[in-house]
Amino acid sequence: MDPSVNRQWRLARRPKGMVAETDFTYREEATPRPGEGEFLVRTLYVSFDPAMRAFLREGPSYVPAQPVGEVMRAGAIGQVVESRCAGYQPGDFVAGAFGWQDYAVIGGPPVGTVVKLVPTHPLPAYLSVLGGTGLTAYFGLLDVGRLKAGETVVISGAAGATGSSAVQIARLKGCRTIGIAGGQSKCRWLADEVGADAVMDYRSEQIGSRLAALCPGGINLYFDNVGGPILEAAIGQMAQHGRIVLCGMISTYNTEQPPPGPANLFELVVRRVRMEGFLVGDYAARFGEARRELEAWLASGQLKAFADVQEGFENIPKTFMRIFTGANIGKQMLKIAEAPVAAVS
Amino acid sequence: MDPSVNRQWRLARRPKGMVAETDFTYREEATPRPGEGEFLVRTLYVSFDPAMRAFLREGPSYVPAQPVGEVMRAGAIGQVVESRCAGYQPGDFVAGAFGWQDYAVIGGPPVGTVVKLVPTHPLPAYLSVLGGTGLTAYFGLLDVGRLKAGETVVISGAAGATGSSAVQIARLKGCRTIGIAGGQSKCRWLADEVGADAVMDYRSEQIGSRLAALCPGGINLYFDNVGGPILEAAIGQMAQHGRIVLCGMISTYNTEQPPPGPANLFELVVRRVRMEGFLVGDYAARFGEARRELEAWLASGQLKAFADVQEGFENIPKTFMRIFTGANIGKQMLKIAEAPVAAVS
Repeated sequence: MDPSVNRQWRLARRPKGMVAETDFTYREEATPRPGEGEFLVRTLYVSFDPAMRAFLREGPSYVPAQPVGEVMRAGAIGQVVESRCAGYQPGDFVAGAFGWQDYAVIGGPPVGTVVKLVPTHPLPAYLSVLGGTGLTAYFGLLDVGRLKAGETVVISGAAGATGSSAVQIARLKGCRTIGIAGGQSKCRWLADEVGADAVMDYRSEQIGSRLAALCPGGINLYFDNVGGPILEAAIGQMAQHGRIVLCGMISTYNTEQPPPGPANLFELVVRRVRMEGFLVGDYAARFGEARRELEAWLASGQLKAFADVQEGFENIPKTFMRIFTGANIGKQMLKIAEAPVAAVS
Repeated sequence: MDPSVNRQWRLARRPKGMVAETDFTYREEATPRPGEGEFLVRTLYVSFDPAMRAFLREGPSYVPAQPVGEVMRAGAIGQVVESRCAGYQPGDFVAGAFGWQDYAVIGGPPVGTVVKLVPTHPLPAYLSVLGGTGLTAYFGLLDVGRLKAGETVVISGAAGATGSSAVQIARLKGCRTIGIAGGQSKCRWLADEVGADAVMDYRSEQIGSRLAALCPGGINLYFDNVGGPILEAAIGQMAQHGRIVLCGMISTYNTEQPPPGPANLFELVVRRVRMEGFLVGDYAARFGEARRELEAWLASGQLKAFADVQEGFENIPKTFMRIFTGANIGKQMLKIAEAPVAAVS
């Protein structure tokens, strides 16, 4: 790699329906240099998150829309390679929104959104269970969902990044944990590797009757990553005073017109169910405490960091599409480069 | 009225779609006599509640289904006319599920579901703001909804029994209160008599844009009695961290196949909204405390008991239909008789 070239993927146009490779355009620029108070980051791993689909739409969502023509916004892990900013040295590992590019100049106020890492685990873990993904599962289950030991917990999108973290955390907390995923191989993986107590393949199984069979006492906590018909089926199987944690609705992200919602919301009255949406960013003040607990679980082997690591800068848009076709198992990321600066020990 | 005849309306068949007079059948029986430990109640006012439509369906809901052929179950206020039960004297006023009939024998375990009244207000108030209706609005707003002074509160079905209680309680608690109802006259009544700060006629106004105009800062608390398109519109206007209290969904009760639900549930994630169903029966242990507060508001004139009182035993099924066609303003009830036993002072 020529360090003077900054490869980039930019948003070419707003996707219509399913996101496509042609919605992005490749460009090379000269690698920027940091000004006073800034530092230069070499991107090592980029993160792919279903929520990114939301900011490709026109108009504000919970984050501003991604501007057409700009470098695609994305979470990443990188290494500082040049610094004119106090507190940041070449060799430092950092996590932040460095985007789909080789190099990013960071400085001024945005420094606040960059987290310095002192890696004691392989770097991908900091984008999965120790990153937004693990934090989302953690606060969604424990805080929004108020999960209690002994409960029956159902998690959709369970083979995804947040889902596979949630399955593990729910089991760790002493819950009977049922994972829903698409396809036999994902389901086998969930049972064998992730440790779900039971699994359901929504592509080949009758969702409603299978959920009823798996949860004879009803669902105490449903952690929803998908929306759509699976949400509707779960509503139909909730236990009294159950909770539905709305984390995301990937089944609807690539549709132009959102499909109709669940027709059985009256069940929320009959069964006194609470359904609540959340964004992990609201818990920022408590990230430190959560990270310490997640890191301890990871260190003891009670929690595993599952990553689907693709390679090749040219494959970035293709890799983004994998999370919407359900190709990924575990956290989707792409490795752009090895750390260029030798670790200082 | 011949006190030896017990007029009754029984369920003739389960309604299909909109409930009809022909779903019920009129019958006369000999007035029963109380056995040892029982007492005989003369029904004075019968209550009509949207939730009654739910137990006309096959299969259990949160209460068992009403059996076909039996006297229609219904809340009522009556007077004890004969007693072989300690603690109940002729002349005592009682509230309970006496059904669509002139006389009911009460005794044994069911006594527990009968509440003795010592009326200091006109009897209809004990079926409206001092009855299940007022308690539902009270716990729905204050406990489930955690309403706070200064918030913007939207209430659908606002001209109904629970809705008109909720409008008053929300205003009492210092909230800006917007009532949604069908038709100009209901809306005028809500503004002039009930005291809503603003009203919306869902039959003639563009629900979404009107709600947006009325709630520029978003809805903090939406108290939903109707479900359907109004719920969807409210979801689209929620403020961040807003709450949706699901009390009932009258728009769906008389449909064979429930219509599709709101297509915009992802907004619950974006705005971190909590949507929660409840049943007032879960608050039974706190009814006493709530009734004392409601009674104090009623006594001071801060709360009004609005009742739509029909008359004539023959009109009972027709009156039941009024709540589904939206004919009633305030709590729907029907007066069957004057109290036969002179009040003991």
